Amino acid sequence: VTPTPSLIALDWGTTSLRAYLLGDSGTTVLDERAEPWGVMHLPDGGFAAAFERVTGAWRARVPGVPCVAAGMVGSAQGWVQAPYVPCPAGGGELAAGLAPVHDGATAALHVVPGVSQSGERPDVMRGEETQVVGALALHPELAERSLLVLPGTHSKWVRVDGGRIRGFETFMTGELFAVLRDHSILGRPPRGAPGPPGGDGDDAFVRGVAAARDSARGVAPLLFSARALVLAGRLAAGSSLEYLSGLLIGDELRCALPAGSDGAPLALVGDAALCRRYVAALTVFGVAGIPVVDGAAPAGLWRIAQLADLVSAARGRSSA
Amino acid sequence: VTPTPSLIALDWGTTSLRAYLLGDSGTTVLDERAEPWGVMHLPDGGFAAAFERVTGAWRARVPGVPCVAAGMVGSAQGWVQAPYVPCPAGGGELAAGLAPVHDGATAALHVVPGVSQSGERPDVMRGEETQVVGALALHPELAERSLLVLPGTHSKWVRVDGGRIRGFETFMTGELFAVLRDHSILGRPPRGAPGPPGGDGDDAFVRGVAAARDSARGVAPLLFSARALVLAGRLAAGSSLEYLSGLLIGDELRCALPAGSDGAPLALVGDAALCRRYVAALTVFGVAGIPVVDGAAPAGLWRIAQLADLVSAARGRSSA
Repeated sequence: VTPTPSLIALDWGTTSLRAYLLGDSGTTVLDERAEPWGVMHLPDGGFAAAFERVTGAWRARVPGVPCVAAGMVGSAQGWVQAPYVPCPAGGGELAAGLAPVHDGATAALHVVPGVSQSGERPDVMRGEETQVVGALALHPELAERSLLVLPGTHSKWVRVDGGRIRGFETFMTGELFAVLRDHSILGRPPRGAPGPPGGDGDDAFVRGVAAARDSARGVAPLLFSARALVLAGRLAAGSSLEYLSGLLIGDELRCALPAGSDGAPLALVGDAALCRRYVAALTVFGVAGIPVVDGAAPAGLWRIAQLADLVSAARGRSSA
Repeated sequence: VTPTPSLIALDWGTTSLRAYLLGDSGTTVLDERAEPWGVMHLPDGGFAAAFERVTGAWRARVPGVPCVAAGMVGSAQGWVQAPYVPCPAGGGELAAGLAPVHDGATAALHVVPGVSQSGERPDVMRGEETQVVGALALHPELAERSLLVLPGTHSKWVRVDGGRIRGFETFMTGELFAVLRDHSILGRPPRGAPGPPGGDGDDAFVRGVAAARDSARGVAPLLFSARALVLAGRLAAGSSLEYLSGLLIGDELRCALPAGSDGAPLALVGDAALCRRYVAALTVFGVAGIPVVDGAAPAGLWRIAQLADLVSAARGRSSA
């Protein structure tokens, strides 16, 4: 028996819009679509047009199907502003903070708020909170206490305690890599440099991670080495961006890995290919066996919709 | 008596071309010109056309006047490749490594080589070596032993020993700031954030320097705070780039300032406005009274030309 479509779940960020038609749980994906219509790259007609073009057929097929979205769609530059919920925050607080986009009398879409951290180290997330809720729904053993790593444009290191986000830290690793690759001299490796005998493509990433790991002062004195090593014939020009990626991810790990083992299990959450890169980098730090959680966004959207009574608790019990 | 024009000195980098018509020393500037014709932004006709348009009238007025240039004009992407001279290197080694651009039988232009460092920390400079030679000519008291800081797109920290460059380290501070300002989310501060009562424009740079100084892990965990502090109402949106500049310069100082006083006097060399910013940042580290050396590029080009017998030693004795 094919499950009845019960929820439209949208992961709507800065650069892309991913849509899932979910059945009776956060992992029963009946259909899905992806468009490059992030908050900064909308089609003509803006948010409403993007929403209609991605979900219109599904909503016509299942009249009244609830819709939830997470990500930058709820920011000041989004469709509706869903104010940040302060830490500590879990699924309950996020469900209570859903912001409706009104379409006549009924809400067309419910937008998940982001999470803010105040105090000495103010920080914000938007979208990742939903992945955390999903990761904890998929892996209940992580709920009591864990450190979740969400690699990306802005990597988040999230401390989970008692099923809620207790605190977090942001590293701009992905964006830093992209701007250096696309706009700095490091993206234009010197031509004609000899390169090391035998090449070094596979090792360049690991070499970068190890160099960052061993740099007590941080990555700043190392960045230019991605060019200087090529000029010195000790790194192939074609490997220099892999080396740079290793430097930046290695620096993130050097900073963020707990100094001592404080007992909180570590897990990676997010895109599988990017998580594999972090698994490889963690190996250089002697950390192995870290689980990777995939499909956290739709699972989190399902769980939040359930806590907000947009889908029935019975339907979701098996996955919650 | 107006000195006879004796040397055309060119500071020819990636983004600009500065030309000096020098009299009888490295500080007797009879005329000067600046064009945005860096190695990556040449006019139609390329290097030869830029050279002719900037120096043609001077060379017509003083037939046979020698010309020297330093900077990226001697790189693989330049007019002629002037291979790096290895450390330790001083004015003598640089003069011996001058690379001629041939124009018929005579050399139209002599290009100063860059300097390379091998060993564990390979590094390169091109253009800054000439500023170092100039700084030591202008301030002979720095020649025996000093640590020269050349802030810029790629800041160089140069250890001088016995009048020669002994070793150096590169920080991509200026380029990092530019790519983050122009291409990352940090260059688009959130609109509508309230900002702290009373504003904080003047203090934002100093706040950033102090935050970086106090971050034992380095700057990576702090970068996103340039946005998060604005969202938290604790930094004015209009000050966030000043704060970011403080973070990056502060991180450079945290890394590069000698851990203990090893006795080598510190001096800043380069653009006066940028050096003032470093002086302000050094103050946050409790370091005061650092001299700032201006006009180092023409002074260095004069000194190298003199050592290569392109200008008479007698003429330059007073400035050497």
